[in-house]
Amino acid sequence: MTDSSWNTNLSHTSENGIVIRGYDLIQLIGTLPFLSVLYLLFTGELPNPKVARLIDALMVASIDHGAGAPSALAARTAASGGAPLGAAAAAGLLTLNKYHGAAVQDSMEAIQKVFDLCQGGKDGVDRAADTLIMEWRQAGRRIAGFGHRQHKKLDPRLEKLFHLAREAEVSGSYLEAAQAIARGLKRSTGKDLPINIDGATAAILCEIGFPASLSNALFMVARLTGILAHANEEITRMPPMRRIDPVNHGYDGPTARKLFESKQGEIS
Amino acid sequence: MTDSSWNTNLSHTSENGIVIRGYDLIQLIGTLPFLSVLYLLFTGELPNPKVARLIDALMVASIDHGAGAPSALAARTAASGGAPLGAAAAAGLLTLNKYHGAAVQDSMEAIQKVFDLCQGGKDGVDRAADTLIMEWRQAGRRIAGFGHRQHKKLDPRLEKLFHLAREAEVSGSYLEAAQAIARGLKRSTGKDLPINIDGATAAILCEIGFPASLSNALFMVARLTGILAHANEEITRMPPMRRIDPVNHGYDGPTARKLFESKQGEIS
Amino acid sequence: MTDSSWNTNLSHTSENGIVIRGYDLIQLIGTLPFLSVLYLLFTGELPNPKVARLIDALMVASIDHGAGAPSALAARTAASGGAPLGAAAAAGLLTLNKYHGAAVQDSMEAIQKVFDLCQGGKDGVDRAADTLIMEWRQAGRRIAGFGHRQHKKLDPRLEKLFHLAREAEVSGSYLEAAQAIARGLKRSTGKDLPINIDGATAAILCEIGFPASLSNALFMVARLTGILAHANEEITRMPPMRRIDPVNHGYDGPTARKLFESKQGEIS
Amino acid sequence: MTDSSWNTNLSHTSENGIVIRGYDLIQLIGTLPFLSVLYLLFTGELPNPKVARLIDALMVASIDHGAGAPSALAARTAASGGAPLGAAAAAGLLTLNKYHGAAVQDSMEAIQKVFDLCQGGKDGVDRAADTLIMEWRQAGRRIAGFGHRQHKKLDPRLEKLFHLAREAEVSGSYLEAAQAIARGLKRSTGKDLPINIDGATAAILCEIGFPASLSNALFMVARLTGILAHANEEITRMPPMRRIDPVNHGYDGPTARKLFESKQGEIS
Repeated sequence: MTDSSWNTNLSHTSENGIVIRGYDLIQLIGTLPFLSVLYLLFTGELPNPKVARLIDALMVASIDHGAGAPSALAARTAASGGAPLGAAAAAGLLTLNKYHGAAVQDSMEAIQKVFDLCQGGKDGVDRAADTLIMEWRQAGRRIAGFGHRQHKKLDPRLEKLFHLAREAEVSGSYLEAAQAIARGLKRSTGKDLPINIDGATAAILCEIGFPASLSNALFMVARLTGILAHANEEITRMPPMRRIDPVNHGYDGPTARKLFESKQGEIS
Repeated sequence: MTDSSWNTNLSHTSENGIVIRGYDLIQLIGTLPFLSVLYLLFTGELPNPKVARLIDALMVASIDHGAGAPSALAARTAASGGAPLGAAAAAGLLTLNKYHGAAVQDSMEAIQKVFDLCQGGKDGVDRAADTLIMEWRQAGRRIAGFGHRQHKKLDPRLEKLFHLAREAEVSGSYLEAAQAIARGLKRSTGKDLPINIDGATAAILCEIGFPASLSNALFMVARLTGILAHANEEITRMPPMRRIDPVNHGYDGPTARKLFESKQGEIS
Repeated sequence: MTDSSWNTNLSHTSENGIVIRGYDLIQLIGTLPFLSVLYLLFTGELPNPKVARLIDALMVASIDHGAGAPSALAARTAASGGAPLGAAAAAGLLTLNKYHGAAVQDSMEAIQKVFDLCQGGKDGVDRAADTLIMEWRQAGRRIAGFGHRQHKKLDPRLEKLFHLAREAEVSGSYLEAAQAIARGLKRSTGKDLPINIDGATAAILCEIGFPASLSNALFMVARLTGILAHANEEITRMPPMRRIDPVNHGYDGPTARKLFESKQGEIS
Repeated sequence: MTDSSWNTNLSHTSENGIVIRGYDLIQLIGTLPFLSVLYLLFTGELPNPKVARLIDALMVASIDHGAGAPSALAARTAASGGAPLGAAAAAGLLTLNKYHGAAVQDSMEAIQKVFDLCQGGKDGVDRAADTLIMEWRQAGRRIAGFGHRQHKKLDPRLEKLFHLAREAEVSGSYLEAAQAIARGLKRSTGKDLPINIDGATAAILCEIGFPASLSNALFMVARLTGILAHANEEITRMPPMRRIDPVNHGYDGPTARKLFESKQGEIS
């Protein structure tokens, strides 16, 4: 084999164990939380606690969006045809694409561009947003991360994420750039196109310097969780080959309950 | 639409937000760690802290197994043909199947059967294992969770997991049942077929009463992380259409380093 | 690499060209129809003309089943999330599973079993069907290939396929066995569960000795065509992230027309 | 459901049967060859016999390219992890991407551009190719359809395809444009980058006016055949979890044989 030799900088297995980015996996198990090891694998370094907390919050915010999300529907449809759990989940994962979740990378690029145009300052951020909107429109390019099919106003997840970002003492310049884009889109289209979950995730990932090429990967890991739960419910609870109405469906799970009522002591 | 009405017990979205198993997602974001929300979505309830810690450890143990794992190779091969990140990851996810990761559910069934046969007692656990091995052999059924291609001896991840399980004060009966199966396989085949990562995961999930139908789902979320890291490295670092040697490859990431040396204060 | 050497009996590429099962691909191009080369690749030998014609008819019968088929819906849903053509098609392909198309292999096994029980004779074929139905029911095993969600009576494709099978002078014993199973299911359940397209395909493939392990593969190649057409229409004609109603949709293609009216001379 | 009503122009199912682009499927079964119905479904009309013959030849040329093709390797790798046939095939299908098969659409765009620049005339076709190469290089865009990893000289399949295209009396202008691009790439890079199978397919599809958006779809249907054959061989013949060498493998199928020796009468 002539071109057989190649290297990875991610991990290494041997008789002695598994090394992830230089750390012995055995040492990581039970010591660092899963998302910190995910961050290590994706970026090469461990996150500091504030970054770890923000990543965790972003992942929780993206874990599921109900049975009507296209990824949940695709997974349920495959399961309804008889696909086992993993194949159904793969159908769902393939649905996470430019209009559904996998827009974070594009959105990061837009936000970074506005940041660069005004050098991160508050002065001129609206002008920078107008420039971006004009340039991308001329290039026939959609600006991802703004507007949401379901939440006409601000997606309720976002306020919480922005609050956590401020607590983590991020600079705020990228969040400002994202809001400037939303204002610019309103000016140029006349429509309310508020920051959506993709745009908010993008702005926060810009704040913490997360690599854009792996931003969609974060969402995929988070949402695969919801996809698997929906596929499993379809397999275990529903008849095969049913017509799955994407809108007219209800919820028969536990009624509304609050965290930390009776179970406070039990929660990690 | 005649059969349009159906229910999910997982989650519900509305103008007011998203509810997961009765909890307001907004309240969960930044309050509970991602894996506790995953556990909530999968099982219907939040885990207690000991269970949460065990699930976290199992997920870290499964996050990656090097570039030679079939799922990493399939994802890299798809990426090498030009597949974008999500499509390459789906090819990897499809590779997680009965011989590679997705054996946990089968293994849980075997361990549960041995537990049931001896009613969880230590007396007779070896006889129960022999019964299981004989019955499954007659049915032409492979007992998953034992033996590993690479680690001829005990997979080094397992000692750590068993240690954490003991710390979590699980009963130990399912771990005992798993070890009895390994002893029985040695007696009946003459070969060393020690518990592997699937079998250990299965035994621990039996200990905490995790639903077998979603056991493979845990592994899929964990390993998708490694799959995405490998697909991303292939896309960003390697030439397209290369011959990917599944064995002859090296590691050029950070050299061996220890946790908590200079960064102790920073780690969450 | 210790275990590097392995063999395939399918095909071989070299500087001189490509060999498929011993035949030079160059010689096949333009000489044999595509489905004969498919048959060669799948079975190892070229089909005789009667078999080739039956395979062709089976593939045409399976090429599409409207926009409400779960595989079309899954592909459209993935495309609606932004998946490119190939990823959307993969989501559709994953939906072709035990309840939707990929039931042919199971159905062949049932039909073969009835054939074997009565040794292909007409005497006792109903008794053999009863035996099969009883044994599979006891094993908790569903008999695939009978009953259809949409066509309450005989699926209109089947009459044509059975006619072509008779023209091809197949023995008819497997078709008889399939019909005996339908009669047996009616006796034992009281419900009309006529042979469906999977069952008819299975019976005809048994008649021509096609390998059961590749029977679902035939259907996958045929139906991928329809899946791709639906995914392409979704991508090129529909807005992204739409709610795709699985039942309430219409047809606005060409109105009813007949073959061989004005174009007779043009058709190959 | 507010946005429930939508239309497809592909096909329609009802109690009375299935209509494809206006034709009753029952009438098509056994009357028209599968690839003509594929062409109908993809383009809206039936092909004339010359076009049907060219499409058939293109599909045969693409049906398989040996066990070392990335799509075959990805399918085998997934199967080696335990994936069933359909899931393994989906992993292979996902590998058919911009560097591997799914380059036909891009290549058609390049060839069409050169054709347009010189208005299909032979005069100036080299200048038009130079313009295209310069413009796409400035845009950072790769020109697909030229150069092949394995066949350093002209891929042996191409001569046959070009011969059939001439027999079908196509204009030849698009084939000329493709060859001009190959000459231009040689001039500008100094390297031999002959037309490859993607480029030849692209040129011929331009000649017959096939829609570019579905050009990759043709290749996917053709190559899924080879992918399924490889996945099936992996499942039925190979041990699980093996290391699949992408280069060092042999062929143990039938030895070289010729069409039409002893079997002439049998071939359709």
